[in-house]
Amino acid sequence: MGIRESVREAEFSIRDISEKASRMEDVVRLDIGQPDFETPGEVKEAVSDQVEEEHVTYTSLWGMPELREEAADYESWKVGLEGENVMVTTGGIGALHCILTGLLENREKAVMNDPAWMPYSLIGKVSPGTFEQVPYFDGDGNVRISAVEDTIDSDTELLLLNSPENPTGRVYTEDQVKALGELAEENGLRIVSDEVYDHLLYGDAEHVSAAEFFPERTMIVNSMSKNFAMTGWRIGWVASRDEELIHELGKVNRASTACPNYLGQKAALTALRQSTGYVERMREEFEERRDLVLQHLEELGWNAVEPRGAIYAFPDVERDSWDFAHELLDEERVAVVPGAAAGDSAQTNVRICFGSATKEEIDEGFERMKRFVG
Amino acid sequence: MGIRESVREAEFSIRDISEKASRMEDVVRLDIGQPDFETPGEVKEAVSDQVEEEHVTYTSLWGMPELREEAADYESWKVGLEGENVMVTTGGIGALHCILTGLLENREKAVMNDPAWMPYSLIGKVSPGTFEQVPYFDGDGNVRISAVEDTIDSDTELLLLNSPENPTGRVYTEDQVKALGELAEENGLRIVSDEVYDHLLYGDAEHVSAAEFFPERTMIVNSMSKNFAMTGWRIGWVASRDEELIHELGKVNRASTACPNYLGQKAALTALRQSTGYVERMREEFEERRDLVLQHLEELGWNAVEPRGAIYAFPDVERDSWDFAHELLDEERVAVVPGAAAGDSAQTNVRICFGSATKEEIDEGFERMKRFVG
Repeated sequence: MGIRESVREAEFSIRDISEKASRMEDVVRLDIGQPDFETPGEVKEAVSDQVEEEHVTYTSLWGMPELREEAADYESWKVGLEGENVMVTTGGIGALHCILTGLLENREKAVMNDPAWMPYSLIGKVSPGTFEQVPYFDGDGNVRISAVEDTIDSDTELLLLNSPENPTGRVYTEDQVKALGELAEENGLRIVSDEVYDHLLYGDAEHVSAAEFFPERTMIVNSMSKNFAMTGWRIGWVASRDEELIHELGKVNRASTACPNYLGQKAALTALRQSTGYVERMREEFEERRDLVLQHLEELGWNAVEPRGAIYAFPDVERDSWDFAHELLDEERVAVVPGAAAGDSAQTNVRICFGSATKEEIDEGFERMKRFVG
Repeated sequence: MGIRESVREAEFSIRDISEKASRMEDVVRLDIGQPDFETPGEVKEAVSDQVEEEHVTYTSLWGMPELREEAADYESWKVGLEGENVMVTTGGIGALHCILTGLLENREKAVMNDPAWMPYSLIGKVSPGTFEQVPYFDGDGNVRISAVEDTIDSDTELLLLNSPENPTGRVYTEDQVKALGELAEENGLRIVSDEVYDHLLYGDAEHVSAAEFFPERTMIVNSMSKNFAMTGWRIGWVASRDEELIHELGKVNRASTACPNYLGQKAALTALRQSTGYVERMREEFEERRDLVLQHLEELGWNAVEPRGAIYAFPDVERDSWDFAHELLDEERVAVVPGAAAGDSAQTNVRICFGSATKEEIDEGFERMKRFVG
């Protein structure tokens, strides 16, 4: 009469730090993985009217038809899509859940990068399938073709890509996407392309989607949470050229949520149509913060993949990341996320989020870190 | 590279009829399983202000602490609960998903009534476990003790109760709840008690929760969708005396949704605090509709369990329910749900929902049905 074994074994990973931090005073929070920006004002105004005027009901389990079409348009520079190619989900995590639970049989496997966004392993343990992490890139950014290939076996069904990447801030180049996509193609795998930060790019970084080069085997996962600073609305989607796949994944969406929530969908519709300027202003602010983080990292002498997208830096602090994070919090009241939860390759990395801290907070956080290590 | 077998096999059940009906003109819709009442006005007003004033962010994955406490209070007449005993979910279906996916290993089984709410089998097929239906009651309402017991084997973990029941409108009596709960107790099963219609009761019906008599082994599933006419907000919960269970089920909530949506939680909080009167007015209207349905059923000579709660009647039309539903829709433009999808025992039943049709529509629908069978 107990919890399922794989669920019991799963860990909430980073909650230890965030819970401890939330009970303390005067903490610089560089651990929180969400933008500090508000939902765009035009979205709030529209929803404030809609909630009074409209009947807030169930929608289609695949989402409102007009939102499916709008999301298809939003993705169409990557690959040609119609509304039927999109299923609206409860955030990007809802899309990942539908894919992994809908596609993987018990023995089947998804391969993902090491390091990877911490909740991937949780989603994997909740799904019937299994997960294996392998470092996709060497120190020079070359794809480790044979290492990835060695991880793909006859039970492997899915290859996960995540660009811009959480926790590293890496933006995959066209060459990297092609090399990984060709591995998927040669081995008959579907590609899950998690692109939830695809509008948060810095410097000369350009977003490349696997869907551009592997349109038939790529499922795009996207979300309003990060690109539009709309985390609390819980709206994301999965998009695929394979309409039948979208239809079938609807069963998991239905079984886990009935349908996405009504006002969240309305809000997403307004944002996709009207909030492009807002996103750009947010991106500019994040770029300034990112530059500041890079400068501090250089002063500290910490190595990190250059964050060219998303809202994270992932430096190597050359110590056990759990010890580092706990001691840093206890001694200097700075909260960062231990990298260990992101994969074996990241035992001595920590994730620093510049999406939810002002420039002043970032400066203060790094001054404390310098004192801590100095 | 395909859909997981058990997902592929799952059926959306009743969508055939509803999709066909939505493409036709002048249809009396007795198939739609949601109240036609609006979200309570005080909830809409509060949310309209909140969306402008508040930062719509992620919440705790178990839900906002104040909502968990409010929901615990709401359930406390059944069993003593604190906020830590409640996890807020994406509707009642989200609670069922977390329970079944969080508790059932691959081979393990949940037992449920025949007939049962159609999506139960979908939730079951998406979970790692299996489902078996057995008619809990004989024609006189006696619990079929030995038949249920025969269905419980060493791999059975959960016994599902659903009162007031969808699709029958049955309200389990104290004797029935005790008899079923004792079977769970004797066999070491947890009880999943789906009580999402627990405020929609008619005549002298009283709601009895298994949690009153089996507090340690019962998980209450509840929702704002039906009791408060708040389907589109997607807020429900699971409540259990077992705090550790609630903690662990959070992993499934996190992995499938990140957290329940922010405004939905705010709306639920307002409704639980302020909308009791609204619920009672809705219930009174539903009771009038129910009485009308009973009168029509008697005139038609159709047998049905007396609907003493929820928003459904489930008469035996003495014909294959799919044929009946399709022909009724084609010939007389009345949409009802074929009972076949609810279980083997219901091949000749249809579900008539009085929650989303006015009294005039109910009269018109039954006039057409009388012409159809006459």
